[in-house]
Amino acid sequence: MKKINIGLFGFGCVGQGLYETLNNSKNFAGEIKKICIKNAEKSRSLPRRLFTIDKEEIIRDPEIDVIVELIDDANAALEIVTSSLKNGKSVVTANKKMVAENLEFLVKLQNETGKAILYEGAVCGSIPIIRTLEEYFGHEPLDEVKGIFNGSTNYILTKVFNENLDYDEALRQAQSLGFAESDPTLDVKGFDAKYKLSILLTHAFGIYVKPESIVNLGIDHLKNTDLEYAREKGFKVKLIAQARRIDDKVFAFVAPQFIGHNDSLSSIDNEFNAVSLTGDFCDEQLFIGKGAGSLPTGAAVLSDISALSYDYKYEYKKFYNLGQLPFSNESLLKVYVSFNSPQEIDLSDFESIHDKYFSFDHSYVVGNICISRLLEKKWLNNPNNNVVLCENSRQLQLGNLCVASLNTEIEDLKKGQVLLEKITV
Amino acid sequence: MKKINIGLFGFGCVGQGLYETLNNSKNFAGEIKKICIKNAEKSRSLPRRLFTIDKEEIIRDPEIDVIVELIDDANAALEIVTSSLKNGKSVVTANKKMVAENLEFLVKLQNETGKAILYEGAVCGSIPIIRTLEEYFGHEPLDEVKGIFNGSTNYILTKVFNENLDYDEALRQAQSLGFAESDPTLDVKGFDAKYKLSILLTHAFGIYVKPESIVNLGIDHLKNTDLEYAREKGFKVKLIAQARRIDDKVFAFVAPQFIGHNDSLSSIDNEFNAVSLTGDFCDEQLFIGKGAGSLPTGAAVLSDISALSYDYKYEYKKFYNLGQLPFSNESLLKVYVSFNSPQEIDLSDFESIHDKYFSFDHSYVVGNICISRLLEKKWLNNPNNNVVLCENSRQLQLGNLCVASLNTEIEDLKKGQVLLEKITV
Repeated sequence: MKKINIGLFGFGCVGQGLYETLNNSKNFAGEIKKICIKNAEKSRSLPRRLFTIDKEEIIRDPEIDVIVELIDDANAALEIVTSSLKNGKSVVTANKKMVAENLEFLVKLQNETGKAILYEGAVCGSIPIIRTLEEYFGHEPLDEVKGIFNGSTNYILTKVFNENLDYDEALRQAQSLGFAESDPTLDVKGFDAKYKLSILLTHAFGIYVKPESIVNLGIDHLKNTDLEYAREKGFKVKLIAQARRIDDKVFAFVAPQFIGHNDSLSSIDNEFNAVSLTGDFCDEQLFIGKGAGSLPTGAAVLSDISALSYDYKYEYKKFYNLGQLPFSNESLLKVYVSFNSPQEIDLSDFESIHDKYFSFDHSYVVGNICISRLLEKKWLNNPNNNVVLCENSRQLQLGNLCVASLNTEIEDLKKGQVLLEKITV
Repeated sequence: MKKINIGLFGFGCVGQGLYETLNNSKNFAGEIKKICIKNAEKSRSLPRRLFTIDKEEIIRDPEIDVIVELIDDANAALEIVTSSLKNGKSVVTANKKMVAENLEFLVKLQNETGKAILYEGAVCGSIPIIRTLEEYFGHEPLDEVKGIFNGSTNYILTKVFNENLDYDEALRQAQSLGFAESDPTLDVKGFDAKYKLSILLTHAFGIYVKPESIVNLGIDHLKNTDLEYAREKGFKVKLIAQARRIDDKVFAFVAPQFIGHNDSLSSIDNEFNAVSLTGDFCDEQLFIGKGAGSLPTGAAVLSDISALSYDYKYEYKKFYNLGQLPFSNESLLKVYVSFNSPQEIDLSDFESIHDKYFSFDHSYVVGNICISRLLEKKWLNNPNNNVVLCENSRQLQLGNLCVASLNTEIEDLKKGQVLLEKITV
């Protein structure tokens, strides 16, 4: 095995994790030759000669074989990756946003340059899901990919359900322990999970779907009354990313879901992630591991560098084998929607309503709504309104066309009547 | 990708599963050219011209690229595999006994012939554990590999604990549903799990350990009183295969264990298998999937055939990276041993005794015993005596030398006193 000289961009949490795993791996024939950082003044744990602020010094160094890109900024990351591949260097990255938003372009660039880009660390940290999809399920028709893809929100929801905390207190605890960012928007609104889902859609179903085409509902509108509702019914709430193939169309979404205690995802707690695959032959497979953190993600990056040493590249087998299945948002989901006042949601967006409940401190409807309506957001952006999916994937209903069927009951609601009742149709 | 001509040995459960997965895979460039069977008279679901009883017709066919060996008989399987590799053909097999007993020889044969043998289907059916260990954890120091490796016994124990059946009734149900063989010895005595553990020892820790050097305690001595004891304490019993690296020695064993409800293996039920890896960087990873069955194992075999199409072979990275760690049975395990009469067990085999309980229908001791003593069996073969491990791996104790420390209490027991008491030291 040839020795690999690594040029590293970024020396934050994952970069330092990579450095540590690399130094503690037996017989790994590689070393970090240079590290490009943004801030030259910041004090570093390694000798000064290892660092540079000039990216060209790394990209144009003929002795450097592999570029490892571990910075936050997705646009800058794309520039580094593009210019590295064009300079004949293979790349390892953990930047999920950059990969998700540019995957079709990055695949073309790999084909043009003959160089590889690997990004196992971008999806669910230490869980080897991309490699497994490529190598092991490359020929198996998959029906579903589903899981808990974000550790911060899972930590928050675990605190909420296992320790009976309210959402704000759980978020504060997660932040103080470093499990959530000081600006938690990308996590709690489901963007982070959506980027990962978008990447897996390519490796599991062979399609490119831009993140903007996938609906992401977050957990930041969860109210205490929603939590009580879930507890009463014997559910937990988990933020689930899900993709399914139905009649050779692919549907995908990120949303909080009520999860029963028998569900295999119910016991995945704290910062752990889980990915469940359901295939025609293998039935359900579940992969559980730490989804984030310095060492788990560093180890995923290291395993990609190691794979480059024997010229491994993703073959995007599903893309070539399945012939571009269409992606669609025209399917119905059964959702629970809580609100302060019926005027704040547009019930004509629903295909049908199953349950209605109104009281002074907790009002909700349960009904079927089309994914494409959820994507438009509209009243969903109102923090008084919260959506939780009711059904797990097995009952996902396929609708070819979404037409809200208004009936008199809904008309009554729209007039603002507050009824202390619960109707189940 | 070149088209692969397959020569198949055996057309039982897995062979037929392979045929079905192959025919339902999109764009898989391969086909079964000939199938060697033992019994020419048996009626088959495929055209007669596909079958032969002459193994040379397959092994010497220059058009056949890959031999897939799926027969029961381990000795005959070894002959087929050896002569295939020597004839320049790579091999896929699912025969765990053959691989476990001959792995060092098979690795040498691969090196000599330059041909590959892949055997993902031999370990935990649809779970891609060998490939993951090779490709993803090749450089990561692992501390532990542990799991539920046998679907039949897990099905039986699930019935016992979830439906309160006794052992015999659960075994009968498992047999009538095809989850246990009519002769269940290899499963219920832990041999099947041991073969798989022996194979994983090579891929996780880089050592060859013959199955005969690994202790396997089964579930066939479980009495109703043992089950009641477990239920009272809030445990389930699971048949666990486990290997740990402690101070750069490797320990391994297969035994029933008391498993608390918070243990990640507690909820793995029915015919599912699970493999847990604990590594220096990734922390705990858990892989769950169907451990046996026609299609799941067929899919594992298919993924190996697919890997051969791009000349994949196992690199046995740990073997070359870790420098042959010593395997040892000189470690203490805390065990619960139930018996009918104290004369039937030799308490001098114990290093120490923690609990003793005697009554007319249920008597047991809890104490520390060295793995090497368990390996000798002696009184363990007596079906009146049953052993269950008390501790999970985190408390596994390392003993350099096992000397049973007899004390007066134990001497009392050996005199056959029956005391209605329970002492906890």
